[in-house]
Amino acid sequence: MNRFTSAAAVLAVALLSAAPAAAYDQLVEKQVFEMPTYTTRGGATIAPVRIGWEAYGTLNEAKDNVILVTHFFSGTSHAAGKYAAEDKAPGYWDAIIGPGKALDTDKYYVLSSDTLVNLNTGDPKVTTTGPASTNPATGKPWGMDFPVVTIRDFVEVQKALLDSLGIAKLHAVMGASMGSLQAYEWAAAYPQMVERLIPVIGSAEADAYLIGTLNVWGAPITVDANWNGGDYYGKEPPNKGLAEALKIVTLQANHYEWADETFGRAWAEEGKDPAKSMDAKYKVEAVLDQVAQARAKVSDANHFLYLVKANQTFTAGHGDSLAAALAKIEAPTLIIHQPEDLVFFPEGVRKTAALIAADGTPVKVVELAGTRGHLDGVLNMAQAADAIRTFLAKE
Amino acid sequence: MNRFTSAAAVLAVALLSAAPAAAYDQLVEKQVFEMPTYTTRGGATIAPVRIGWEAYGTLNEAKDNVILVTHFFSGTSHAAGKYAAEDKAPGYWDAIIGPGKALDTDKYYVLSSDTLVNLNTGDPKVTTTGPASTNPATGKPWGMDFPVVTIRDFVEVQKALLDSLGIAKLHAVMGASMGSLQAYEWAAAYPQMVERLIPVIGSAEADAYLIGTLNVWGAPITVDANWNGGDYYGKEPPNKGLAEALKIVTLQANHYEWADETFGRAWAEEGKDPAKSMDAKYKVEAVLDQVAQARAKVSDANHFLYLVKANQTFTAGHGDSLAAALAKIEAPTLIIHQPEDLVFFPEGVRKTAALIAADGTPVKVVELAGTRGHLDGVLNMAQAADAIRTFLAKE
Repeated sequence: MNRFTSAAAVLAVALLSAAPAAAYDQLVEKQVFEMPTYTTRGGATIAPVRIGWEAYGTLNEAKDNVILVTHFFSGTSHAAGKYAAEDKAPGYWDAIIGPGKALDTDKYYVLSSDTLVNLNTGDPKVTTTGPASTNPATGKPWGMDFPVVTIRDFVEVQKALLDSLGIAKLHAVMGASMGSLQAYEWAAAYPQMVERLIPVIGSAEADAYLIGTLNVWGAPITVDANWNGGDYYGKEPPNKGLAEALKIVTLQANHYEWADETFGRAWAEEGKDPAKSMDAKYKVEAVLDQVAQARAKVSDANHFLYLVKANQTFTAGHGDSLAAALAKIEAPTLIIHQPEDLVFFPEGVRKTAALIAADGTPVKVVELAGTRGHLDGVLNMAQAADAIRTFLAKE
Repeated sequence: MNRFTSAAAVLAVALLSAAPAAAYDQLVEKQVFEMPTYTTRGGATIAPVRIGWEAYGTLNEAKDNVILVTHFFSGTSHAAGKYAAEDKAPGYWDAIIGPGKALDTDKYYVLSSDTLVNLNTGDPKVTTTGPASTNPATGKPWGMDFPVVTIRDFVEVQKALLDSLGIAKLHAVMGASMGSLQAYEWAAAYPQMVERLIPVIGSAEADAYLIGTLNVWGAPITVDANWNGGDYYGKEPPNKGLAEALKIVTLQANHYEWADETFGRAWAEEGKDPAKSMDAKYKVEAVLDQVAQARAKVSDANHFLYLVKANQTFTAGHGDSLAAALAKIEAPTLIIHQPEDLVFFPEGVRKTAALIAADGTPVKVVELAGTRGHLDGVLNMAQAADAIRTFLAKE
């Protein structure tokens, strides 16, 4: 039972909404949704499936003020607010989610869930089901026996969550990167349910280059002897390979403009010239290593590989062609992207926009500015707030 | 002694040059240059240094018709022609090197050498000195005890080779990618010697993003337990990690346009849907793996890491600033690049061009078209032939 649906919470939020726009000032409650059994689109059974979720704002009586936010590759449900007052940072899209913000929690009920095979198995706030979960048939972690899951499976589990809450309409679906893939899939799979679509920094299909890139992301894991074919639970995990995998993602999700202005050719350690020793590094290398090693400690290598697969297999709507698939999308669409994105290149985004628009579906494209490349779609979204607000307000 | 300098060879080529433009029809002879000892710019001693080299055309009596061609990261001296009639393919720039071609071997003596720490230690035609070479102090391979070498060291060894041939002027220096770094360095280090500069698909400095990218390229090697801190000679080499490293390079040197039109979302094996099994791959993945594994067999992992370091440490001319360094370049410059290059992004190339031109040095920039990205500078150079020919003919 979601506490926001109680009458008291509704009243509390109604009172708050009279105040001027402010940071989302309620603590966010992480909840868990469980399905006793789920059958993947590929026909495999996972029992049980458990995912975490959270929401900001109040579900109205008609239950028609819902915005579903779907998360990126290395993300979680935590899109806005804080779980505890002492949290260092709020959720990743806090700049655009909250009272009076673009996704105005005085109006909308913004809901976000952890995906299947979520990367962050070591984050105590994350609940997910994947290779690190217990296989009831063996009482041990699934490992690589876990079935392949796709973006469509992520969507189906989210739909089951919404069904459990009695939500039959989505005012909008919005997500960044892998979140945009889920958003495209939602709009193509359930066109009657999705009223507005906001894909951010993503295209409607993994093309050959992205398939290859995702393979490259995962490769260091399989090179690590500790990976052991995915059988490492209770042993030393392949965190060296996982850190290298996360390093590639971090670098590619960023941009040379940011890297150059942040690090230049600075050395990692004063007096240790990288030209003098194979062990001496540049600062950009040392920082990337540090971040990646920290991330690896709370991530799971097999989950990383299953996320690679989910993204590789993605082609929105599963039509005979991408054009046929995208013709299924009926929701007015606001595509937000960064022209210097090095993960989802602008051509793919423009192609997606053209194919959705081909049968008359309204499509607006907004370009983000910034020096972060792909990550501007996560870190620098305030600039798109007015465009989002206007789009969400349209009948 | 170079056979082309013999009077008979001069005559033979003079006769050939009366014939219409044709494929370079002499067999190329690979030769070896040895220095009893070489001291790196960092102050370390390598003894001996041996590198392979080859040339096309005839050195004239004034020895002033020389074009030095410097090779890319995974390349060798083999820029044109065939070593044997039955060779499957000629050198990588055969389209622009030969009788009547842009680098007209009827006029020019085109010379190219293997670099230090050349990657292709398993290629019988390659001679190089690096971690896989014997350290005379121990009688065993150097491994990671081999000193760091830089692009400037590559240039210094090439200069020693030219000195040995009595060559004191270069009509031009030209190279692609890492070859362009050597070309920039030549022009900044020896401005009185270099008469023309033709950097192809490269910038005059490794910026922070390229430093990080090169780190990512090498990372899978160090994750491979067989790498063993570089001590694997006589044991099982880290070819799994090396293959993954080479796979990253292959993908990044290519472009999504090519990947998409070549592979699309085709499966590697008929009937094996990648969405049904973690082991089933897409065709683009399978082909990248196949190519990378084949390359790994004739490459050396430590040499790869030393090449990474040489590229990371590169900043042309070693001035107080890049502007000061590039002001040292006096040679008229023809920069050839591909605007969709995913290794050396166009901004870096444009910045380089502007800094060289800042003190009045003539700079012309030619853009390549194509679907291969970075690799258009290796595979599709015929389109630049006229621009190169005109530039080389200018007094």
